[in-house]
Amino acid sequence: MVKMEHQKRLFIDDEILSWITDITDDEINEVHKKSLVPFYDQLFLEGHGAYLKDYTGKEFLDCTAQAWTCNIGFANPDVAFAVGEQLKRLTHVRYGFPTIPRIKFIHKLTSITPGNLKKIAVNAMGGGAAIEAALRLAMINKPDAEHFYTFTRGYHGSSLATMTLSTRFAGVTRFRSWGLDKVSKIPFPYCYRCPMGQENEKTCHLECFELAKYMIEYGSVDKGCGILMEPLQAPGGHIPAPKRYLRELQSFTQKNDIFLIFDESQVFTRIGYWFSSDYYDGIIPDITCLTKAVGGGLPMGVTIARDDLIGFNAAEEHTTFGANPLMFASGLVFLNYIEKADLLKNTREQGDYLTSKLKQLQKKYDVIGDIRCPGLFIGVELIKDPETKEPGNALCSDLIEEAMSQGVIFGHSAPISSDSGKLFRNVLKIKPPLIITREDSDHILEVFENSLIEAIDYM
Amino acid sequence: MVKMEHQKRLFIDDEILSWITDITDDEINEVHKKSLVPFYDQLFLEGHGAYLKDYTGKEFLDCTAQAWTCNIGFANPDVAFAVGEQLKRLTHVRYGFPTIPRIKFIHKLTSITPGNLKKIAVNAMGGGAAIEAALRLAMINKPDAEHFYTFTRGYHGSSLATMTLSTRFAGVTRFRSWGLDKVSKIPFPYCYRCPMGQENEKTCHLECFELAKYMIEYGSVDKGCGILMEPLQAPGGHIPAPKRYLRELQSFTQKNDIFLIFDESQVFTRIGYWFSSDYYDGIIPDITCLTKAVGGGLPMGVTIARDDLIGFNAAEEHTTFGANPLMFASGLVFLNYIEKADLLKNTREQGDYLTSKLKQLQKKYDVIGDIRCPGLFIGVELIKDPETKEPGNALCSDLIEEAMSQGVIFGHSAPISSDSGKLFRNVLKIKPPLIITREDSDHILEVFENSLIEAIDYM
Amino acid sequence: MVKMEHQKRLFIDDEILSWITDITDDEINEVHKKSLVPFYDQLFLEGHGAYLKDYTGKEFLDCTAQAWTCNIGFANPDVAFAVGEQLKRLTHVRYGFPTIPRIKFIHKLTSITPGNLKKIAVNAMGGGAAIEAALRLAMINKPDAEHFYTFTRGYHGSSLATMTLSTRFAGVTRFRSWGLDKVSKIPFPYCYRCPMGQENEKTCHLECFELAKYMIEYGSVDKGCGILMEPLQAPGGHIPAPKRYLRELQSFTQKNDIFLIFDESQVFTRIGYWFSSDYYDGIIPDITCLTKAVGGGLPMGVTIARDDLIGFNAAEEHTTFGANPLMFASGLVFLNYIEKADLLKNTREQGDYLTSKLKQLQKKYDVIGDIRCPGLFIGVELIKDPETKEPGNALCSDLIEEAMSQGVIFGHSAPISSDSGKLFRNVLKIKPPLIITREDSDHILEVFENSLIEAIDYM
Amino acid sequence: MVKMEHQKRLFIDDEILSWITDITDDEINEVHKKSLVPFYDQLFLEGHGAYLKDYTGKEFLDCTAQAWTCNIGFANPDVAFAVGEQLKRLTHVRYGFPTIPRIKFIHKLTSITPGNLKKIAVNAMGGGAAIEAALRLAMINKPDAEHFYTFTRGYHGSSLATMTLSTRFAGVTRFRSWGLDKVSKIPFPYCYRCPMGQENEKTCHLECFELAKYMIEYGSVDKGCGILMEPLQAPGGHIPAPKRYLRELQSFTQKNDIFLIFDESQVFTRIGYWFSSDYYDGIIPDITCLTKAVGGGLPMGVTIARDDLIGFNAAEEHTTFGANPLMFASGLVFLNYIEKADLLKNTREQGDYLTSKLKQLQKKYDVIGDIRCPGLFIGVELIKDPETKEPGNALCSDLIEEAMSQGVIFGHSAPISSDSGKLFRNVLKIKPPLIITREDSDHILEVFENSLIEAIDYM
Repeated sequence: MVKMEHQKRLFIDDEILSWITDITDDEINEVHKKSLVPFYDQLFLEGHGAYLKDYTGKEFLDCTAQAWTCNIGFANPDVAFAVGEQLKRLTHVRYGFPTIPRIKFIHKLTSITPGNLKKIAVNAMGGGAAIEAALRLAMINKPDAEHFYTFTRGYHGSSLATMTLSTRFAGVTRFRSWGLDKVSKIPFPYCYRCPMGQENEKTCHLECFELAKYMIEYGSVDKGCGILMEPLQAPGGHIPAPKRYLRELQSFTQKNDIFLIFDESQVFTRIGYWFSSDYYDGIIPDITCLTKAVGGGLPMGVTIARDDLIGFNAAEEHTTFGANPLMFASGLVFLNYIEKADLLKNTREQGDYLTSKLKQLQKKYDVIGDIRCPGLFIGVELIKDPETKEPGNALCSDLIEEAMSQGVIFGHSAPISSDSGKLFRNVLKIKPPLIITREDSDHILEVFENSLIEAIDYM
Repeated sequence: MVKMEHQKRLFIDDEILSWITDITDDEINEVHKKSLVPFYDQLFLEGHGAYLKDYTGKEFLDCTAQAWTCNIGFANPDVAFAVGEQLKRLTHVRYGFPTIPRIKFIHKLTSITPGNLKKIAVNAMGGGAAIEAALRLAMINKPDAEHFYTFTRGYHGSSLATMTLSTRFAGVTRFRSWGLDKVSKIPFPYCYRCPMGQENEKTCHLECFELAKYMIEYGSVDKGCGILMEPLQAPGGHIPAPKRYLRELQSFTQKNDIFLIFDESQVFTRIGYWFSSDYYDGIIPDITCLTKAVGGGLPMGVTIARDDLIGFNAAEEHTTFGANPLMFASGLVFLNYIEKADLLKNTREQGDYLTSKLKQLQKKYDVIGDIRCPGLFIGVELIKDPETKEPGNALCSDLIEEAMSQGVIFGHSAPISSDSGKLFRNVLKIKPPLIITREDSDHILEVFENSLIEAIDYM
Repeated sequence: MVKMEHQKRLFIDDEILSWITDITDDEINEVHKKSLVPFYDQLFLEGHGAYLKDYTGKEFLDCTAQAWTCNIGFANPDVAFAVGEQLKRLTHVRYGFPTIPRIKFIHKLTSITPGNLKKIAVNAMGGGAAIEAALRLAMINKPDAEHFYTFTRGYHGSSLATMTLSTRFAGVTRFRSWGLDKVSKIPFPYCYRCPMGQENEKTCHLECFELAKYMIEYGSVDKGCGILMEPLQAPGGHIPAPKRYLRELQSFTQKNDIFLIFDESQVFTRIGYWFSSDYYDGIIPDITCLTKAVGGGLPMGVTIARDDLIGFNAAEEHTTFGANPLMFASGLVFLNYIEKADLLKNTREQGDYLTSKLKQLQKKYDVIGDIRCPGLFIGVELIKDPETKEPGNALCSDLIEEAMSQGVIFGHSAPISSDSGKLFRNVLKIKPPLIITREDSDHILEVFENSLIEAIDYM
Repeated sequence: MVKMEHQKRLFIDDEILSWITDITDDEINEVHKKSLVPFYDQLFLEGHGAYLKDYTGKEFLDCTAQAWTCNIGFANPDVAFAVGEQLKRLTHVRYGFPTIPRIKFIHKLTSITPGNLKKIAVNAMGGGAAIEAALRLAMINKPDAEHFYTFTRGYHGSSLATMTLSTRFAGVTRFRSWGLDKVSKIPFPYCYRCPMGQENEKTCHLECFELAKYMIEYGSVDKGCGILMEPLQAPGGHIPAPKRYLRELQSFTQKNDIFLIFDESQVFTRIGYWFSSDYYDGIIPDITCLTKAVGGGLPMGVTIARDDLIGFNAAEEHTTFGANPLMFASGLVFLNYIEKADLLKNTREQGDYLTSKLKQLQKKYDVIGDIRCPGLFIGVELIKDPETKEPGNALCSDLIEEAMSQGVIFGHSAPISSDSGKLFRNVLKIKPPLIITREDSDHILEVFENSLIEAIDYM
């Protein structure tokens, strides 16, 4: 009988290296014609720690962690070793097959999940798939309902289905997403711009929550299967929901037998805690979803559920690439790295430092409308005028452009647009890898202030 | 100013290796309780060439190439080198950023795409995302229509949207997919079981195509945006559409200004040609989608379009992980490997050899109803009785189980079920890595016949 | 206590008469500006028997019976007496209240319904409401399914929901109807233009039915709640389904537990029988719907179901005007009138006479492509050329216009259009009140032939 | 040539009279088995003025006007004369044909419509059809949008589409309506039970309207085609929207180019004014819909639009029975009768009298929670306890039952239920024909108080 043998290399090292390191100006310029998607001009060659280097040799401290993903650095050497070893053994299996990294990852992650969130589906693809899995799981466990509620300004993915769960990019997206009959939106408790017009916490009686309950009870289309929420809204403006809102919401969903589903894509570890429930003193949803950082920089999505829920059958959850062992190897390194390097503590410390310094700047510059955290999940809302709170959209993009020229990359909130032409894209995000030092933080603050002064000058 | 420095390793090699190579029986057993998805018992440790080794040390020649994906072998060393090097440089960038592997991959792939299919969107996630991108692209380029036609028994993904494009697993899936208003199904030209009841090619006048045209013209819900088709239907039973059907379909879509979209996920390279158009003498769609093998065993999806179509804006196509440079490095190796090793030729040769031998077996065993190819895209339809053509569902699963015990893994067609209880799951698939040798082929044939005899005995 | 007293008249007779009989040219001309819907120029003042008189004094033999409704004549004096008496007693009650005419009508109608079709919901509004009630009833009795199948070219109403059940007026209707996710269309067995391309009955093996079954089993979106069909398709071209098709369909729906729902709006009494089942030797659906003639010229719709089905609760079927006793009084006269005047017999006799004479004309004029009946449900399909069967759209409208000038009003099939620009509006309808005499029939034939000659001249 | 002749009577008067006046107990009892819809036991034989007489000879003062429809009395003799005369001339024409009563009705109605609401579509069917026509008209005039907003607790019809616009009868209706993707609900400004939890007008800053705007701008699915509203919500609890809310809403819709569509089905004439805009000092929508009273007790629906909107083509708005001249004759009498008898003034006077007396009772009985008007559109909200405002559902039905036994019929608000089990059906409606006298009003008040005392006793 024929036997397994290791394959021989077909190419010499240099040939392969040329594919990933050599490029001509012509190749760069010509690709735009061939690409269906727009590319930025900037071409990054390398990243180490919290820094990136581009094609021209310029270096940047990246406060976006590249889509808020590379929390343990851009080319983490432990990740490289783990994935490199897995590459020599097995690069891919079908979805139904367990592998050692997959099993280990599940055990490791369930050791830190809060409460009874002890059942997991992992995928090597990303957050959209994790969110879709959460919706399916809810429908399977509540067969008489299939309607979902999400929040205004929310973001949960870019598939034809998860776009419907997310804020609509009015006037931008030139097609309609699918499943518009499946989703209703309720207002996110965005206190700085209260949808109810409340001006301060004292007069607020959670009118927005009263309204949400009312909409679900009397504006509904079926019993309601689940409410999907970013407990700390990320692309929509870096807005943590008030704790009392979440408390009421949890109690409402329990009483009415509707699943409370969290999307913790951007907050897992970045807020200085593993899960949002640690920040919110134990408000635990029925299902939660992770992605972004959890794969250590490689694609991964995780759906975590209460251990009493029934799971999927093979037809209900499967994908070609969902079980890729490379990603689980990387994810395992990520979980262990956060722990061993005590990065949650560093995140809280650097976050507190940055936030307190930004608050000092706020007193100096009245275009700084609001500063939101926790940890290294920092949003700075810029405004034209403290009276009207008119969004400082141009100010924000000018500041970002200026900082880029000074070697610091800041992030930008997603554009929240409406058909009537209103646009909010005025929250600057500071979300670097969690490994930054105090020195890095000071550098960020310095470039921020310098760039802000420049941007105000353009106004 | 702070400067980029390489990160230090935090873990020693052995600790990391233990995460990907050591496992206890307890860990294996306990994971079932924690997993929301069902796992097979079999745990694969390693794969090299066309062979896999499991936890017990048993080796298998894998005719599924693990979800028909690892066309250049399970742990291809050139892939390992390329990805390993990229891991040391940069593991991830945001979707809008080009990287060298991404640019090179686009240039390489467009050098082999047929006709004017010269515009590309690549993603490091998979086929579902590529299909969804194709639908969006069609809608953007045809703004007055948003209805799609797909084919019965087809399969195009497992997202909430692409499930709707695919055959419904009646009686199995316990939730409804999204976008049921966006899709109508037309009958796939499955000649062995003609939906029109035609018995042979001579009496056939493509009645099924007449019908499809009629349904689109008079049963439609809007102008029709696109027709999505696997030109060689894969999970639904390994069925190549007749060339004259495709010719008519292409002409119809051109005349009526409807996009013809191909899903070539499983056929790219596997049929012994890069693209289906090579097999079909130049029938080129408006848009085509690749996945599975194209990433060299790592996740990738590709949407390829006519170069006169307008592309996406940044809001219309983007994902967190879509631009991962690791995958493009792997994909680049794949394209070059196929070329340098002349694997398309080997695929045609081994395919022809296997198919001709199977046809000889067909004369001997009347439960072999139909044998379908080309290349290493081989389906063997098993039946209970040549008169009634009743599907040999149990026969097929028995054969597969028996072969597994003899060290060869065969694939299984997707279950095609109906609400009235009819079930078709009787097509055995032979789709090994394209690197198999004549010796491997003989081994496959031997185990196939032995297992068939056993399976017939159980009947 | 206060007591009931008859109200006094407030207006003198002449004032009221002026509102319904006097009109000025100005009033006629000005109304077009104020109307959201287009009006024909022709203003009918009176109708008696099968004849109408317009504002200019011109008289017409009306072979449309005004929307195929006035089967017992335009101002039937027995209807006038019955409704006039009811008007003096009670003009309206809420939907939940029975009245004597409503009770009597239900008893009378159930005395003639075939088989076990013995449960009835009557409404004083029309056919759309009856069809919608049939769908609800099906959903209530089959709670795990909500998808419906209808036929290409069909017509079932003009509400936002029933439009979806009907043929789409491609390129005409400037909005999308509701519920596109609830309905799929299967091809109507239109033998003169076989959707399968069959040319004659001998080679036909009901391929279209094979296809319909296949589409329902494998192209479906849920278990399928019901199949809604005009057994004799009316607006779509006056096409009786072949009996063997209906037989197969009935057997299929019974086996698969899908409701077979008939829409007999235009055929009730007009085909020379009360119900289509009398014409089709006992093929009885699970639910059937009536409208048009059944109200004796006044609005009415009826949903009739198998007596073992569960009925509606008060929230599931009710309307403001659905119980109006005037309509039931008129409907009662209609049922009794048909019976006492033996109009079914006259319908068959006049129908046979007209059809046989038309068949003689067909030999003389090769633009007469097909003649379809039965009874006074007559369609004449006009073509440009017997080879190509190209539809004689202009010929048909020219003939109708010419006949109008000669004092006979013929009907027109609904426009069947497709997005590719094909149009079928070439079936002339002869559907006079059922009270016509042999003299009337001869007059119809004479004007038909004269007008046909004129119309051919225009070609 | 054949000539028009009046038809002969076939039946003698007595036979026909027996169909509408004679009934046996058996016939009454047996009809329940044959009816798909539930019937009340009570059988009304006659109605004159504001009074009804049932089968047992008992008389009732009807404060429901039978579905709030018979505003000029139950068998108005002028209506009887007009319709009787029309019956002798022409009972029915196709939708596209004008008739004298239709033309006259359009001219008469446009003479009283407010502002530039001067384009009309009339139908002889009812309000659901008028609402559906309004939606179509909006879509035709705003082709890039098809989403509609309606209000919680609203009611707009019972067709498969208009059910979706209306409050869902949670736990009652056993099927899902169509078009759930087309409609979102916003909270009705129900001040007695403020959805925002506001307790009085002083602290209210129209938070509910802020919210509605926010939901439309940021929770939307397309640009938004129209907002459909009962300015005075009828079945949902007799709740007039605050004038300042309507003013803001009108201004918002104008600014955002969304159609403001009113449903004035129950308020036309009943509030003591023709249109709600007279009550609301000139707040005029873009489109408004009438039904109920407007047909003088016979079925009618009217869609009225701004005179600059484009109208329908023949395929977009048509029905079999929509042009029935009998209904327009009756509607003409209605409009003239209201005018000549000065019934709007009587409505205001009787309404004011009843309301002021009820407010005196409110001081005496604390279960009277709220009294709402204007005119003879009176709602009395009953509660269990003035502190909690818990709805007095049983109290309300007991009162109605008791009053019925004392010869006065009161109405009941629609059940507003939620999936969590909350039920509101506690608003008693006083909506008699507009012809009632002061003597009638006193009788109503006397029976109301007596019945209330009895109902309180049951508590």
